[in-house]
Amino acid sequence: MARTAAALVIGNEILSGKVQDANTATLARELRALGVELRRVVVVPDEIPLIAAEVNALRHAHDLLFTSGGVGPTHDDVTVEAVARALGRRVVRDAAMEATLRAHYGARCTDGHLRMADVVEGAEMWSGLDARWPTMVLGNVFVLPGVPEIYRYKLEGLRPRLRGSETPFVLRSVYTSLDEGAIKDTLDAVVAAHPAVMIGSYPRWGDREFPVRVTFDGRDEGAVRAAADDFAARLPPTSLTRSE
Amino acid sequence: MARTAAALVIGNEILSGKVQDANTATLARELRALGVELRRVVVVPDEIPLIAAEVNALRHAHDLLFTSGGVGPTHDDVTVEAVARALGRRVVRDAAMEATLRAHYGARCTDGHLRMADVVEGAEMWSGLDARWPTMVLGNVFVLPGVPEIYRYKLEGLRPRLRGSETPFVLRSVYTSLDEGAIKDTLDAVVAAHPAVMIGSYPRWGDREFPVRVTFDGRDEGAVRAAADDFAARLPPTSLTRSE
Repeated sequence: MARTAAALVIGNEILSGKVQDANTATLARELRALGVELRRVVVVPDEIPLIAAEVNALRHAHDLLFTSGGVGPTHDDVTVEAVARALGRRVVRDAAMEATLRAHYGARCTDGHLRMADVVEGAEMWSGLDARWPTMVLGNVFVLPGVPEIYRYKLEGLRPRLRGSETPFVLRSVYTSLDEGAIKDTLDAVVAAHPAVMIGSYPRWGDREFPVRVTFDGRDEGAVRAAADDFAARLPPTSLTRSE
Repeated sequence: MARTAAALVIGNEILSGKVQDANTATLARELRALGVELRRVVVVPDEIPLIAAEVNALRHAHDLLFTSGGVGPTHDDVTVEAVARALGRRVVRDAAMEATLRAHYGARCTDGHLRMADVVEGAEMWSGLDARWPTMVLGNVFVLPGVPEIYRYKLEGLRPRLRGSETPFVLRSVYTSLDEGAIKDTLDAVVAAHPAVMIGSYPRWGDREFPVRVTFDGRDEGAVRAAADDFAARLPPTSLTRSE
């Protein structure tokens, strides 16, 4: 049985429109390559009770849960405390992380910096690509930062930890000059003929040459290719603009 | 009492990493300008039972709910059916929308195109900026398309419908060359001194000149300005790099 995943984005900055979330797209692509299905994303404010309740709901309903955001040293960074509350555990200072932070910041090191050494008691610290900056793991919960560059780097470091027995998803796309209403019957026939392939149809606004992208997703590369080829073959050749 | 809002993003394309969600940022900014607080965003796959359950959970827990995606003519567009199921209503064909679609597509008009005239029975059709392309409203539920350009346009058309008595949020930002650990104590003092202002601290990766952006949000412009000025005044002048 293929694993499922959820993402919990802790982010006043997303809910107030200051920042556009980029981490979900990064996570989704990483999970597709692993063959894991991302089933749900929830964005909540930086509030401990809300985060804790959502951590529990999502970790029980999915095989993997990735949180992003709220792990820095300032007052609005409450994820560690919220995850601890969700699990009924304490927050403790990790000696190895403290040593790393002291070495990194040297004479400039403050109590604020050292807050980043606070972890949920009993957490596994996964070393990833750089053993000095491990990722906190609590069973099936992976606690990641909000900064997109560090999020991506830490997720890459988790690959060996996350790799399972699933077959990765493959994706093919066909672009057509016809609009969605015009391809609907053809698409319905292709959907019916290829039940093992997930087929999506996405209008591209302002693109007169390729106004619709039709995507074919699945774990069976042959089936995905057959569905995409079948759809392309059923279209009038002049309307078939691109495939990849 | 200020209204709260939630967003439900219906999107296999987001969960599979094909597309990065842009509509949440658009909605969040629009709601800030109206003084409405976006409290929760949920992304679910194109599956009727999941969408219907989430529509009900979110519309009951918030004053406003905005769905995005799944309203086109193809097999993966199931939002109208899901919203109908959530409300225990039927899907019916809207005569005015059908006439608009027939006029728009002319001889090319297919049954597929006409699917876009299917609405939840009893829905209000809000005319917005262009009366020919109204937005479906069901009580506090606003059904919007996924295509970002059309989403933005329709949301703009909803402004008069959404405007209430709330004071809009204002935002100020201060950028500093100090890192988050170094400003934590100052920030804590400012947070304590300005309880009516929401203060956020966001590290900016790879920006050596302004590595941290501190934001000040609230409905009281004077209070927001005072908090931002207070924070800026407490920083060493050389570390205060920009404010806006």
